Amino acid sequence: MSELINSEVFLAYSTYTTIVLLKMMIMGPLTGYFRMTRKVFSNPEDARAHGGKDEETMKKYLRVDQDVERVRRCHQNDLENIVPFIGIGLLYAFTKPNLGMALLHFRIFAGSRIFHSIAYLVPFPQPSRGLSWIVGMGVTFSMAYRVLKAGMHF
Amino acid sequence: MSELINSEVFLAYSTYTTIVLLKMMIMGPLTGYFRMTRKVFSNPEDARAHGGKDEETMKKYLRVDQDVERVRRCHQNDLENIVPFIGIGLLYAFTKPNLGMALLHFRIFAGSRIFHSIAYLVPFPQPSRGLSWIVGMGVTFSMAYRVLKAGMHF
Amino acid sequence: MSELINSEVFLAYSTYTTIVLLKMMIMGPLTGYFRMTRKVFSNPEDARAHGGKDEETMKKYLRVDQDVERVRRCHQNDLENIVPFIGIGLLYAFTKPNLGMALLHFRIFAGSRIFHSIAYLVPFPQPSRGLSWIVGMGVTFSMAYRVLKAGMHF
Repeated sequence: MSELINSEVFLAYSTYTTIVLLKMMIMGPLTGYFRMTRKVFSNPEDARAHGGKDEETMKKYLRVDQDVERVRRCHQNDLENIVPFIGIGLLYAFTKPNLGMALLHFRIFAGSRIFHSIAYLVPFPQPSRGLSWIVGMGVTFSMAYRVLKAGMHF
Repeated sequence: MSELINSEVFLAYSTYTTIVLLKMMIMGPLTGYFRMTRKVFSNPEDARAHGGKDEETMKKYLRVDQDVERVRRCHQNDLENIVPFIGIGLLYAFTKPNLGMALLHFRIFAGSRIFHSIAYLVPFPQPSRGLSWIVGMGVTFSMAYRVLKAGMHF
Repeated sequence: MSELINSEVFLAYSTYTTIVLLKMMIMGPLTGYFRMTRKVFSNPEDARAHGGKDEETMKKYLRVDQDVERVRRCHQNDLENIVPFIGIGLLYAFTKPNLGMALLHFRIFAGSRIFHSIAYLVPFPQPSRGLSWIVGMGVTFSMAYRVLKAGMHF
């Protein structure tokens, strides 16, 4: 095991997995920031804690805001794409791939997801966000192919 | 570690985890396909890129469609159930279970999730989808029981 | 590998990961329970299976209910926070941390997430839920820091 932990491929997997998960985690506080500054809440107790003293203010605060929803969609897209990356990426790292090839996969994925978030939040005109989404998925599909090619047991 | 990677149980875990994650990933492009063919978008920049030239068309395109929402609920249900499977399944593979027993767990889970997606998207009348959901959760609960029985440290 | 599996840190990771994933999984049946007892459904086939015989009943059953939405938001928050914990936690366990320090991380995280769910579902007045959310994220950030400090390969 120490052999694996000390391996460069596993270290690269560890580094990029941590980076993309941290990137994803930022979406949570960002949603909170938009909710608090724009006074947009889903829960009555949240609205109450942020100035919703009377019935009328509460009604105004418990609403759907397009900027908050945008951050939430970005967060959801991260979940949908980063979960397969970390699962399949770990299995891929176990197949003892060439370091350069592994780094290529991890770097493109991390880059595509960071670009995706920026493209979603600014927002950039399409198809920039769509293309970065496809690139990220392509990396995961490529790793999945190599995992299955390295060995299968049905 | 090589010992583990070469073990049949880990190979089976690797195979089925890749399969269910690939199955989950298909939901993303499927959502995109429905959005583009039915002209149903959440983001103004997406509507604009797919023919939303004037104010009126934009308004028509930025809507909620029940077929798109159905795919999204199917995707969400995958996330909620496949994440625990891959997390607990990895720990289960580490407990050195009997290969036949491990394969039984992985096969039933993968089968139940593939059936669940078909039942959701066709859709089949209930309780077919509900039952496949319960079967998948049952497999994960069974693996969790075996993980905790194999050893705990609180 | 046996060395790792038998290590106390990995056993602690395994125990707490299983606990928080099981806690997250409860949210699914809980949503189902609220849907069935309150007759609140998203899918026509679900409404039909639970007494939606005629057009009018169907319309009444296919609605959004604030109690169901609350459980769903709680579930979603679990996904957003437990996924980074299990991913980064596994890498952290591989850095061979001190057992006491690792247990401190895992216990605080599990405690904060269990408290978070109770605070969300009761609900408790804020900022109790918000604070438990921040504590859980703090644990994951602390583990991420230790993972990156233990070694990086870009």
